[in-house]
Amino acid sequence: VKAAALHGPRDLRIIEVPELPLADDEVRVAVLDVGLCGSDVHFFEHGRVGAFDLGAPQVIGHEAAGFVVEVGAAVERVAVGDRVAIEPGRACGGCRECTMGWYNLCPDIAFMGMPPTAGCLAENVVVAARFAHPIPDALSAEQAALLEPLSVALWAVSRADVGIGHRVLVAGAGPIGVLVARVAAAAGAAEIVVTDVVPERLAGAPLAPRTRTADVSAGWQSLDEEFDVFLECAGATRALLEGSLHLRRRGRAVLVGVPREPEVPVHSIVTRWRELSITTVHRYAHTWPRAMALVVSGEVRVDDLVGRRFQLGDTALALEEALAGRVGRKAMIEVALPPDGPTSAIN
Amino acid sequence: VKAAALHGPRDLRIIEVPELPLADDEVRVAVLDVGLCGSDVHFFEHGRVGAFDLGAPQVIGHEAAGFVVEVGAAVERVAVGDRVAIEPGRACGGCRECTMGWYNLCPDIAFMGMPPTAGCLAENVVVAARFAHPIPDALSAEQAALLEPLSVALWAVSRADVGIGHRVLVAGAGPIGVLVARVAAAAGAAEIVVTDVVPERLAGAPLAPRTRTADVSAGWQSLDEEFDVFLECAGATRALLEGSLHLRRRGRAVLVGVPREPEVPVHSIVTRWRELSITTVHRYAHTWPRAMALVVSGEVRVDDLVGRRFQLGDTALALEEALAGRVGRKAMIEVALPPDGPTSAIN
Amino acid sequence: VKAAALHGPRDLRIIEVPELPLADDEVRVAVLDVGLCGSDVHFFEHGRVGAFDLGAPQVIGHEAAGFVVEVGAAVERVAVGDRVAIEPGRACGGCRECTMGWYNLCPDIAFMGMPPTAGCLAENVVVAARFAHPIPDALSAEQAALLEPLSVALWAVSRADVGIGHRVLVAGAGPIGVLVARVAAAAGAAEIVVTDVVPERLAGAPLAPRTRTADVSAGWQSLDEEFDVFLECAGATRALLEGSLHLRRRGRAVLVGVPREPEVPVHSIVTRWRELSITTVHRYAHTWPRAMALVVSGEVRVDDLVGRRFQLGDTALALEEALAGRVGRKAMIEVALPPDGPTSAIN
Amino acid sequence: VKAAALHGPRDLRIIEVPELPLADDEVRVAVLDVGLCGSDVHFFEHGRVGAFDLGAPQVIGHEAAGFVVEVGAAVERVAVGDRVAIEPGRACGGCRECTMGWYNLCPDIAFMGMPPTAGCLAENVVVAARFAHPIPDALSAEQAALLEPLSVALWAVSRADVGIGHRVLVAGAGPIGVLVARVAAAAGAAEIVVTDVVPERLAGAPLAPRTRTADVSAGWQSLDEEFDVFLECAGATRALLEGSLHLRRRGRAVLVGVPREPEVPVHSIVTRWRELSITTVHRYAHTWPRAMALVVSGEVRVDDLVGRRFQLGDTALALEEALAGRVGRKAMIEVALPPDGPTSAIN
Repeated sequence: VKAAALHGPRDLRIIEVPELPLADDEVRVAVLDVGLCGSDVHFFEHGRVGAFDLGAPQVIGHEAAGFVVEVGAAVERVAVGDRVAIEPGRACGGCRECTMGWYNLCPDIAFMGMPPTAGCLAENVVVAARFAHPIPDALSAEQAALLEPLSVALWAVSRADVGIGHRVLVAGAGPIGVLVARVAAAAGAAEIVVTDVVPERLAGAPLAPRTRTADVSAGWQSLDEEFDVFLECAGATRALLEGSLHLRRRGRAVLVGVPREPEVPVHSIVTRWRELSITTVHRYAHTWPRAMALVVSGEVRVDDLVGRRFQLGDTALALEEALAGRVGRKAMIEVALPPDGPTSAIN
Repeated sequence: VKAAALHGPRDLRIIEVPELPLADDEVRVAVLDVGLCGSDVHFFEHGRVGAFDLGAPQVIGHEAAGFVVEVGAAVERVAVGDRVAIEPGRACGGCRECTMGWYNLCPDIAFMGMPPTAGCLAENVVVAARFAHPIPDALSAEQAALLEPLSVALWAVSRADVGIGHRVLVAGAGPIGVLVARVAAAAGAAEIVVTDVVPERLAGAPLAPRTRTADVSAGWQSLDEEFDVFLECAGATRALLEGSLHLRRRGRAVLVGVPREPEVPVHSIVTRWRELSITTVHRYAHTWPRAMALVVSGEVRVDDLVGRRFQLGDTALALEEALAGRVGRKAMIEVALPPDGPTSAIN
Repeated sequence: VKAAALHGPRDLRIIEVPELPLADDEVRVAVLDVGLCGSDVHFFEHGRVGAFDLGAPQVIGHEAAGFVVEVGAAVERVAVGDRVAIEPGRACGGCRECTMGWYNLCPDIAFMGMPPTAGCLAENVVVAARFAHPIPDALSAEQAALLEPLSVALWAVSRADVGIGHRVLVAGAGPIGVLVARVAAAAGAAEIVVTDVVPERLAGAPLAPRTRTADVSAGWQSLDEEFDVFLECAGATRALLEGSLHLRRRGRAVLVGVPREPEVPVHSIVTRWRELSITTVHRYAHTWPRAMALVVSGEVRVDDLVGRRFQLGDTALALEEALAGRVGRKAMIEVALPPDGPTSAIN
Repeated sequence: VKAAALHGPRDLRIIEVPELPLADDEVRVAVLDVGLCGSDVHFFEHGRVGAFDLGAPQVIGHEAAGFVVEVGAAVERVAVGDRVAIEPGRACGGCRECTMGWYNLCPDIAFMGMPPTAGCLAENVVVAARFAHPIPDALSAEQAALLEPLSVALWAVSRADVGIGHRVLVAGAGPIGVLVARVAAAAGAAEIVVTDVVPERLAGAPLAPRTRTADVSAGWQSLDEEFDVFLECAGATRALLEGSLHLRRRGRAVLVGVPREPEVPVHSIVTRWRELSITTVHRYAHTWPRAMALVVSGEVRVDDLVGRRFQLGDTALALEEALAGRVGRKAMIEVALPPDGPTSAIN
């Protein structure tokens, strides 16, 4: 099968990879749509991401949806022909973390697109059945692929315990920041402020209800210090500290973004005097059904994040364009058409 | 000042009561609107409510808003002329419960309209400044009065920890049940079912988003057993038990309604096997600012609960009509007009 | 292998059962000690327990420890010769409840001794490796068997969120009530009161630190109403209600005992006015390591609960004696001696 | 009345200060014992502490107990002659934080010994009645004074949610670190490790049950990474980061110490991958009754922290000796003898 494999920095090629065998509890999914994430672009640019170096050529991509073309002998949850959203992390199911319900923290998790696990940018992929989530007709494959970044946002907002009446501050107007703001609104936040240091990103931010933007390129002074929750989605070294200074007493900061530096500062005095807490999030757990409900009901829109669409063969181009900032918030790779033609999306 | 005082069962009279003196931390509020609650109607019918017997003639009413006409020497929070929503329970501020943040459980709370504390159905009332909540222009006095029942709903939904993706079951399609459903939707509930045994009540239920109704007059069998949260707002003896049977494992039931019987049953087997929990709510605490945000933002509508409006002099009539079921969901008493004429409501 | 199988009410026989085959993720355990639980005695007396009827002859027993005599091909956690405490419920590992970390609520759980799953009163049993917990040398097999009832207590105290300074009320001075009191003390409870209606049971109660008893055979009036937590371990129909009346505001009641009646009453008025919550517990999850730590450190003693010891061949006698109230708090069946002779217990 | 007032760096003098007037809700306490805290010593050395500069001469001291010699007209809680422990922070009682139950975060709190509020090192002091906690006979005044540092530890352990079976790591073997370890043990921690970089401090650490020490002067490598909770009590710049690296997934770090630098680093990668959370504590709230219970029951010992005792007139000497590290863990100032002579302490 054809797949988009990274061979080195800015060297992505469409190659032929062998079709993987199918275990009893697995399904084979013909991929329809794959969204490109900031980490894909970073991986493409540098040939590495975080602690993950490129060894062999690496198929990338982890925001995906498709339809089932083959099921293992023990699979009951889905059937051939079902359209599914793919949850890309396969946890072991048996370790302490999995047993406690924290499968996102499984030390043996295999995450699609992270070396050495092959990613989703392939004509078909093999997925554990329990991580292939059937989607309703109302959802397009593209929307289904976007359940992955929506899961990131949903998990962050859940960990932050956003609720009715809260004032929420979000750093970063990229796809995750925008989705975080929308999910916070869906959770009842009364007022949401999204900050960024790039005016154009703020100008074009497709906002959530009850949300406004703030340009903090010259500092955060314009903001008051009465937020209940701060979600850092920019990955900027000092953003966690800066945003936390705008939390009221007992406020909660959540680190969602991935700072480049291994160490980031927190303010030891203000944090203590206000009894702030800082929580972190690592991907997501148990989010697909809830994320699906948000999109199906129309509470949270996701498809407007897609700026440009590309074919599988043009993945390298898509990544170059993303690097150059010419794809809008997100590029989507259309790997194949659905068997019955495109589904009309809601929204 | 004129006030509506209950003298015995179905004996409410407009009487002249002396204007109360004003302490340093109090404000005098000229009352504009007072909603009639089910407990007011019950009190009117029976001359008693719960453990509270009628001693002397009792001014009733506790869903109220007005404008400030006099402030005590130490008051900084509000000024003369401010429009305010009245939080009717005055907690002592010094007991264990108040200090812990649970002022709704203050053993010495004085609750307006509950003997021996005078209620709000009077031309003016005296309120501790900290329980007089200034309202923005966008809110009508009628909407402000309805922040009281909205607070009941908001507190219940908060205690139930309703969040994104939850399936929520509500028993009772009266004003509280309807508001609970709306607040649950604002908190992100994916699907809400409101039950009642009176088909007309269900038929006319002004629903929340993502909400449907279910007639359980012939039993609850039509409902599945996959709800995350159940909120009992009907006050029916067996509703807590019946609704709980429809909770999935680890589900949460909240007793909001006031059953007539001092003892209500729970199912000892199902409750244990599913590790359900049952929580109760007593009025509300810290809800006015959040309730206000819900109405101002348009997330939750309240004014459509008002079926008919009456003047203060017609309070007895309003209560008789409410008893006869001829006021729709709620009767509103217009005690006075605002000084500058009516404010236009949002929604 | 020899096993103790219930054939009908008060008809328990030692029979020969076939040795079970071993799957890759299972271990075979030569059983050393099995405690008899109140539910075993009840099952013996009536030939049924709860919804579980006796179909075929049923091997009973679920409080057990032994040593591993054979391991499946994929087992890494334990080795032949290891002494293990057996966690008797085998959850499926894949359902919503298991994935959420609530494996005690797994709808497909197979619980040893509950029809149709064979119990532990056999010379050897097959257990999933992840439910065979290796024990340190400091623990005797008898103590290891008692980690099961200790797990019940630990789970209850955890769900009740008992902490430093709490006043804790426990109904029932049987083995579970006594263990609950001890675990509550280990969690920092400042004062614990254990009630019962049988004076002899109270007189002999081997108490926890900071614990006293109260005879409530003539009513609960002697107790104040200032408890933070109430744990119902008596299984009496009205105990949940009676104990809850002694909770202070925001107190928490936990239903641990198994009432005979499917419906038990709660007090609708007091419960609401004090915003009490009622939680239930179903067995336990994730408790073995923590229970082991409690016993090994000496924080909680368990072996003094054993009143009399019997051999496997005398299981019927042990059950008859237990029925007659002549075994003290608990009877222990010594199925075999450890390969190297008895280990000396701590405590 | 005589009082110990700081006039500048290392310039503490015993001066005569006027007796303060007594408001209706206040009591006058004749001070018996005052412990010296690390912050007192720091204040003495530098003439400033944190953001608090020395303006006028400043009476210091905030770990105090005494007996009531005069009560305001409205005081019911205590009577003349009662021995009381003094909670040194007087919160306003009316702000958002006080109303929410977070009175330690009250922006208008007056904290004894923090400029401009006079401290406890005086022959008598005036305290709001609700912050004067009557103590039982079993408690000595010295133990009562030590309820203040015990409150710091109790609040930290409560915020960290330490419970049965947890492995707890504590940085800093000073008085707070030792008390944190003891309270963690009282809350059921299975294993506690206290680190320090000063071998003598570790050698002399009067340990809690189930506790061992670790010298980290050459690094933290000797410790495993399987702690559930880490409490930073050393105030070292990199300790929060170092200790957090030894938390297992979903572990919780609590910042108790006061780092000298306004910014301290956290590890952005490990913290995220393990979904750690970081909580901070600011003094304490609602702790005195619980702290008292811990000492009275013997669960936690406090008096062995006192190394040397001084008279009020020797406060400057005590501070110099403390600076020189010659008072053991803590110096205690005996301001006066109790009216009936010394009470024998428990323990």
